[in-house]
Amino acid sequence: MLALDRARVERGHSVERVSITRWRDAKREDLSDEVAGEEPMEIRVRVPTTGGWQQHSIAVTMRTPGNDFELAAGFLHAEGSVHNADDIDRIGYCTDVAEDQQYNIVTVYLAPHVDFDTERLSRHVFTTSSCGICGKATLDWVQISCPQKPLGDFVLEPEKLFSMRRALEQSQSLFARTGGLHASALFDLEGKLQYQREDVGRHNATDKLVGKLLLDRQLPASESVILFSGRAAFELVHKSILAGIPFLAAVGAPSSLAVELARRYGVTLVGFLRDGRFNVYSGAERMRWPTPA
Amino acid sequence: MLALDRARVERGHSVERVSITRWRDAKREDLSDEVAGEEPMEIRVRVPTTGGWQQHSIAVTMRTPGNDFELAAGFLHAEGSVHNADDIDRIGYCTDVAEDQQYNIVTVYLAPHVDFDTERLSRHVFTTSSCGICGKATLDWVQISCPQKPLGDFVLEPEKLFSMRRALEQSQSLFARTGGLHASALFDLEGKLQYQREDVGRHNATDKLVGKLLLDRQLPASESVILFSGRAAFELVHKSILAGIPFLAAVGAPSSLAVELARRYGVTLVGFLRDGRFNVYSGAERMRWPTPA
Repeated sequence: MLALDRARVERGHSVERVSITRWRDAKREDLSDEVAGEEPMEIRVRVPTTGGWQQHSIAVTMRTPGNDFELAAGFLHAEGSVHNADDIDRIGYCTDVAEDQQYNIVTVYLAPHVDFDTERLSRHVFTTSSCGICGKATLDWVQISCPQKPLGDFVLEPEKLFSMRRALEQSQSLFARTGGLHASALFDLEGKLQYQREDVGRHNATDKLVGKLLLDRQLPASESVILFSGRAAFELVHKSILAGIPFLAAVGAPSSLAVELARRYGVTLVGFLRDGRFNVYSGAERMRWPTPA
Repeated sequence: MLALDRARVERGHSVERVSITRWRDAKREDLSDEVAGEEPMEIRVRVPTTGGWQQHSIAVTMRTPGNDFELAAGFLHAEGSVHNADDIDRIGYCTDVAEDQQYNIVTVYLAPHVDFDTERLSRHVFTTSSCGICGKATLDWVQISCPQKPLGDFVLEPEKLFSMRRALEQSQSLFARTGGLHASALFDLEGKLQYQREDVGRHNATDKLVGKLLLDRQLPASESVILFSGRAAFELVHKSILAGIPFLAAVGAPSSLAVELARRYGVTLVGFLRDGRFNVYSGAERMRWPTPA
């Protein structure tokens, strides 16, 4: 059973204030400005044993504080260690370290039935595939880690994508203040924003979003669209496919391997979603093109 | 002695061509377009032993093919495993694997005098500091790994920074074709572009640049400015400080920990370098402000 510590502490370090010198229009000004918070976060896993817990340190990621439990859950989901909320007994901040450090260490307690493979789960998911690798080998490895293709038998009109982009921009409150954050957002098929997460790291933003879905038992998110504020790299496509999301859109460019992976899994991948335009790199059958007037 | 394999193969996978469907101004068009190449690259280290080599698999990074040896050298430099060209005997692609994989595995052969610490060099530099961490602990850890503050007793006028930004943009040939790459560039104090490297990953772009400097025996680069096409995160500042670069500028936003690290090391950190404006977050004493008319 999932017994999340809901009373998590939000320390408000997602944005920090610094003094700066600004040069603009040939004038110098000293002022105070906001920057995106960045702090390391260690993810630990505790596996139940007879009479206690065995602890493993899994990773340290540089992240923007906030939604830390979601980040830990989403990270472990992308690594293949947990698949749904039942795999997690509880999540908590570390309490046995100095106070200024405890909110940067998150421990995920696994349920007894979870088969936790420390060999497979190395420090980072792609370091585990290090046995002679090319793009094709990487794609094959993904096939092992996510055997199911996302479903999603729906179509979207271009206008729906443009309105999602506008909604994403309006939701990026931390970005608006700092200019320094990526966002990942989930939309329903009506184009309504469901959840949005921001982070200095785009992988983290997506992990937080998927972690939210996992903890709320909303995976697979097969009737959804995920929108990235930046580019679509291989790992973001991989995380989305694992979450069962069949429609991916990015404000920025996709990479070659992101396109290949999307095609292999039959998910829709849209890039360069800008005012009045976008490119479809994969799964164009999910677009409903308006009939020319 | 450094005996680099200069005859490295550039396979031209830095950009790949894909068929897409474009929607623009309410019109649909099927065409071919270019995307940024992304492939995994495994970095291996071989340590000389009596009668042979002991091999360690260090990391797999998702990178844009090209300048792979520089990437490997720069990565190991940032990890603290090598400090200069003498620490490297040679670098080569793997030849004992299938042909389609050999250009994605780079082996760095270390010189006999190098004390290679596998414990310390974990799969990723920040996973090694995972012993109870906060931002301050991370900064303290950096202090151990790069004890020397970059020198650089020079000043720059705002106009020099603007001209560097223009030069960077003109140099971003792959970005211009794909919209999907980060760039890191090194300038001399006259504002002349020395080297520029592009990659889907901003860490990789900086590792390639620093690797180039290392292999060419140009470290520390104390009479230089490094310019990032995107944001300035903690790790980019860290890599630059290790390379002895005292002046860092970013087209995008810095993070809170990037600002803290720059201040602690007395390096100049400029952010939001745009047309006619920028912010100085650290080391403003290296700016020469024009006298008001």
